[in-house]
Amino acid sequence: MRRGRRPHPVEKSRSKDRGRATAPSTRTEPTEAGPRSHVPGRPGTVTLWGRHPVAAALANPRREILALHLSERAETALSEILADIPPVRREKLPMPKVLDGRDLTEMVPPDAVHQGLVIIARPLAGMAIESLLEDLHATPAALVLVLDQVTDPHNVGAVLRSAAAFGAGGLIVQSRHAPPADGVLAKAASGALEYVPMIEVTNVARAIDSLKAGGFWCVGLSGDGETRIDEARMDGKTALILGAEGPGLRRLPRERCDLIARLPTDPAFGTLNISNAAAIALYEARRSIGGK
Amino acid sequence: MRRGRRPHPVEKSRSKDRGRATAPSTRTEPTEAGPRSHVPGRPGTVTLWGRHPVAAALANPRREILALHLSERAETALSEILADIPPVRREKLPMPKVLDGRDLTEMVPPDAVHQGLVIIARPLAGMAIESLLEDLHATPAALVLVLDQVTDPHNVGAVLRSAAAFGAGGLIVQSRHAPPADGVLAKAASGALEYVPMIEVTNVARAIDSLKAGGFWCVGLSGDGETRIDEARMDGKTALILGAEGPGLRRLPRERCDLIARLPTDPAFGTLNISNAAAIALYEARRSIGGK
Repeated sequence: MRRGRRPHPVEKSRSKDRGRATAPSTRTEPTEAGPRSHVPGRPGTVTLWGRHPVAAALANPRREILALHLSERAETALSEILADIPPVRREKLPMPKVLDGRDLTEMVPPDAVHQGLVIIARPLAGMAIESLLEDLHATPAALVLVLDQVTDPHNVGAVLRSAAAFGAGGLIVQSRHAPPADGVLAKAASGALEYVPMIEVTNVARAIDSLKAGGFWCVGLSGDGETRIDEARMDGKTALILGAEGPGLRRLPRERCDLIARLPTDPAFGTLNISNAAAIALYEARRSIGGK
Repeated sequence: MRRGRRPHPVEKSRSKDRGRATAPSTRTEPTEAGPRSHVPGRPGTVTLWGRHPVAAALANPRREILALHLSERAETALSEILADIPPVRREKLPMPKVLDGRDLTEMVPPDAVHQGLVIIARPLAGMAIESLLEDLHATPAALVLVLDQVTDPHNVGAVLRSAAAFGAGGLIVQSRHAPPADGVLAKAASGALEYVPMIEVTNVARAIDSLKAGGFWCVGLSGDGETRIDEARMDGKTALILGAEGPGLRRLPRERCDLIARLPTDPAFGTLNISNAAAIALYEARRSIGGK
């Protein structure tokens, strides 16, 4: 019923109210208070942009969307995105508003590639590590990633994307030293922020204890690890723990790990970007554990 | 002789000319034409910044350094860098000049993290693919990466860094669709721009033909590849060919490959950042080929 009535809100309002392709009735004048007041960083909201992050957020039933803005050029893209969203979710979304490209650009940080799609949303509800463990309790091949004090949002976003690609069940970060789960991180994650729960903990060492108590084999990554990662035992629930570039894994989290593994990099030039190191570790863990 | 006379140019000039730690005699006034005129993009020069890129460029005998600027805070870092450079190279470097942090910041793009170290240099001399093949002729485990139309300098830089970490002998890019080998790419490469030759070719398909003629087994990467990368034959000279995110490997380069391999990502969320995909491919290739 609903599906038939409202397949593509943008096209609907266009044909009904204006009769031309480029100006839906929901058009917001640039002088209106609405979008201007939603500058990045407004408390209690996040601004997300770009096709993949917006598509994933619109589709995510756990994500409350407050406003949906687009450029005229992005109308087809938005129609395609909305067509893939179940009606029960679609009808909860705000009506899209077409803005000038310049006004969209002002809603996002400099250099942000918004691709004509910008949404204002509530942050995702936090998740406790206990809930994660409960959710993964019956998954024998569960894979979880822990980042200890990795602060760059591009890196954490890229890690989240790889985590989604290799079927990780969650990403655990330390609350005081993690980037906010906002637009920059979401863009780098290319939609994965909506798929992989990001769990903030105050103490990484204690989180590792919880993972071990939950049946996870905890593998820390370090250049001086005793075992090459492709020879490391990873055949059941596995958690990978990575520290920041430079300082690496701190002593206390490291001591809690069951095993410290290393990537087989060239001793003469051994450093990898943290998201590349995480991607390799996730690939190898998934290959070893099998399944998902 | 030289070594004894000029171990750390900054410290030397400091103690001789000023007798205090924070103002070497080589200090350049911000009003001088020198550094101001070397804004990024000046034809025939590149601006490089950040500890790792600067350290690697200073150490690279194939890199002509025109000017070396630092903040007072970076003096110790520069002394450490210079101490690791052989005297025969060190005496060819220009004398360091201390600038205000603000003046350094004006030499680099907005948001660039220069860490108090900025150099002006000549671009590295280009290398022909024939020279690369000649250099790698006697290396049975040679590994080469080809990027087809990957244009983001952060990504290409990160790929170069992983290429160095896994001992790749060269990175081949298409000249018309590759980012310039300048500061942004160099920063993401974290020094690897000085270690891994970046070879520009006009035609990627023909470059693959050359690689095959040079004894390389050419493995293309694509989500619909017939073979999982960990099951792909890679036991001698190997070239990995990756296309851009989105469009992927184009038809003509793809047809030239000996094999199309896929990464074992989740079908429901299968996309990886290009540098993460390259890192995994390099890791797996090095693991399969062995050696270096």
